[in-house]
Amino acid sequence: MSRVRILLEKDLRAVVKLDLSAVDCVEQAFAALATKPVAMPPVLRLDIPEFRGEVDVKTAYVPGFDGFAIKVSPGFFDNPKLGLPSLNGLMILFNSRTGLVDALLLDNGYLTDVRTAAAGGVAARHLARADARCAAILGAGMQARLQLEALTLVRPIKEARIWARDPENAQRLADAFSREHGIEVTAVADAKDAVAGADIVVTTTPAEKPILLAEWLEPGQHLTAMGSDAEHKNEIDPAVFERAIYVADRLTQTCKLGELHHAIEAGIVRPDRSFDELGAIIAGTATGRRRADDITFADLTGTGVQDTAIANLALTRAQNAGSGQMIDNDTTMGDAA
Amino acid sequence: MSRVRILLEKDLRAVVKLDLSAVDCVEQAFAALATKPVAMPPVLRLDIPEFRGEVDVKTAYVPGFDGFAIKVSPGFFDNPKLGLPSLNGLMILFNSRTGLVDALLLDNGYLTDVRTAAAGGVAARHLARADARCAAILGAGMQARLQLEALTLVRPIKEARIWARDPENAQRLADAFSREHGIEVTAVADAKDAVAGADIVVTTTPAEKPILLAEWLEPGQHLTAMGSDAEHKNEIDPAVFERAIYVADRLTQTCKLGELHHAIEAGIVRPDRSFDELGAIIAGTATGRRRADDITFADLTGTGVQDTAIANLALTRAQNAGSGQMIDNDTTMGDAA
Repeated sequence: MSRVRILLEKDLRAVVKLDLSAVDCVEQAFAALATKPVAMPPVLRLDIPEFRGEVDVKTAYVPGFDGFAIKVSPGFFDNPKLGLPSLNGLMILFNSRTGLVDALLLDNGYLTDVRTAAAGGVAARHLARADARCAAILGAGMQARLQLEALTLVRPIKEARIWARDPENAQRLADAFSREHGIEVTAVADAKDAVAGADIVVTTTPAEKPILLAEWLEPGQHLTAMGSDAEHKNEIDPAVFERAIYVADRLTQTCKLGELHHAIEAGIVRPDRSFDELGAIIAGTATGRRRADDITFADLTGTGVQDTAIANLALTRAQNAGSGQMIDNDTTMGDAA
Repeated sequence: MSRVRILLEKDLRAVVKLDLSAVDCVEQAFAALATKPVAMPPVLRLDIPEFRGEVDVKTAYVPGFDGFAIKVSPGFFDNPKLGLPSLNGLMILFNSRTGLVDALLLDNGYLTDVRTAAAGGVAARHLARADARCAAILGAGMQARLQLEALTLVRPIKEARIWARDPENAQRLADAFSREHGIEVTAVADAKDAVAGADIVVTTTPAEKPILLAEWLEPGQHLTAMGSDAEHKNEIDPAVFERAIYVADRLTQTCKLGELHHAIEAGIVRPDRSFDELGAIIAGTATGRRRADDITFADLTGTGVQDTAIANLALTRAQNAGSGQMIDNDTTMGDAA
C-alpha cells in the first residue's frame, strides 16, 4: 500500500510564501550543491513547435532531504489566445530512500515562481553590498515583481525603478508595488536610466538579444540575470564579463543555457575558463564580492536542487497543516496483466 | 480552472490489459516514430547510489496523439528488504496543445510492464516467422511471463521453455503459465537447451554479462532482447551481430543502452554502422526478415513513444469508463506570492 498526498495550487499557496524561510531553504540547497554529493542530471527538454510548446524536466537528489523532486515545466506560448496561462506544471516528490511517490504538488508553476525569486534573494544576500537601497528591475512580469519582493527581504531596499518593453506594464507594476510595499517604485522609459545609480539590477525578461549594456554598469552594483533558461535567450551584453565578477548558479548549465553561453559564443570568455558557483560562495569556499566597488553578476538558469528544496519545504508544511488529500494506491506485486 | 483525472493502479489495471489492442497501440507508436516528426529527447537518468536507487524519465511527443506522457520509473533495489517492490513510478499525461496536466496515472509501473511486453509482441509480429510455435524465455520475472503472453497474442505458440538463474523460479513460472494458458511450458536447466529448436527466443533479465551465445542460434529463429535498458546491462553475446539481422527500437538509444552498445565496444560493429528500426519495418520502409531461415534480432531498450501511446490509451478508456477521480485545480494567473 502506497499513500500519496495530493496538494493543489491553493494548498501550496497557503503553506509556502516568498519569505525569508523560502530564501533560506533555497540557500541551503545551493550550499548542498557545493558541499554534498548532489546528483543533478542535465535538464531534459521536449519541444513541440507545432503548438509553440516547450517542456523542461528538472530534478536533483540532495543528501539530507527526505525526498527528491522531479519537476515538469511546460510553456505553451499560444495559450493566452485560449485564455490559459503560458506556464504551468507540477512537481512530484519521491521518497529518497524508496523511490515511492510521497506527494504530487499540482502547483501550476507556483513553487517554481517562488524558488526562482528566492534564488534572486540568495544571490543578492551573498553578492550585493549590505547597504544596497535602490533596485532596478528590467521586465514587468511575474518574476519582475517577485524578484523585487525577494530583494526587499534581504537588503534595505527603499527605492526601485521598473523598465519594461511595454511602458504600461512597467507603470502598472510600479503602482501596485508602491501601494503594497510602501516603497518608492517608479516606471522609467529607458533601461539605461533604470540602471543608473541603482545598487542592484535584476533582469527578468525572455529577451533574445541583450537589453543591458556593459557600459551602463557602475562600480559597486550587483546584477542578477534570471531570464535566460534556454540556448536562444540572452539578456546581458557579453562585454559585462570584462567588468564584473561572474557567479553561476550551476556552471554546467550557464555555459549552455545562461548568459555565459553567449559570452563564450561571442569569444569574450574562453570555453575552458572556470568561474565560481553561488553555492561555493554560500559555503565560504569562494569569495564573490571582495570590495565595495566590485561589480558582481549572478547568472541564474534555475536548478533542480531549488525544486527539491522547495518541494520538501512544501510537503513538510502541508503535513504539519494536514492539508491536501491522501490517496491510497494499492501496489500489486508480481501479477501484472 | 484545470481539471485533472487521477487514476490509481487498480483503475488502470481495470481498463488496460496486455491484449491485442495494447500490441496495436504500441505498434502504432513505433510506426509514428518512423513516419512522423516525433520529438523524443534522450532519457533523463538520476542515480542515488546511497540507496541503490536509479530513476529514468522518458517522454515523447507523437503528432496525432492528444497527449504526451512523461514517465518516471524509479528502481530502488534495496526495497525488497523493506517489503516494497523495487520498481515503481507513474506517468503524467499532458495535453499536447496546451501543456496542461490532463491525467495522473499512478500505475506503480504497471503500464510500463504492459507497454514493454506489447513491444515484444510487435517485434515478434514483424520479425518472427508466421508459423512460430515454440518459444524460449530466458528469465522468470514479471517480463518473462508477460513477454510469453505477448507472443501468444501474435503467433500460434503451442510450447515454451523457461530458463532462469534460479531453477525454482523457472519451474514456478512454467507451472503457472501452463495452468493458466493451456500450453505446454517446461522449465529447463540449461539456457542452451531452451534455445535449441525454439522459433522465438526472448531474453528478459538484468544480466550484465551475456546469457545467450551466438553459436546457440539456429536458422529461422527470432531473438528479442529486452533486458538491457542501461549502459552496464548486457544479455547477448556480441557475436550474434555477425549472424543476425539486427533491428533497434531506437538506434540512438540501443547504441548507448542496448545490446548494440556492447557490440560496438567489443569492436564487432563499427560505431557508424546503421541499422533499421522497428518502426521502419512496421511502416514498410525497411524489410527485416527476408527469408524463412534468416535469424532476426530485436533490441528493445524501451522508448518514450510507447509510454505516450499506452498513456493515451489508458486515459481514453478511463474517460469512457468514467473511472478515476476528477480534481479541480484552480489556476491563479498573475498573482504569485
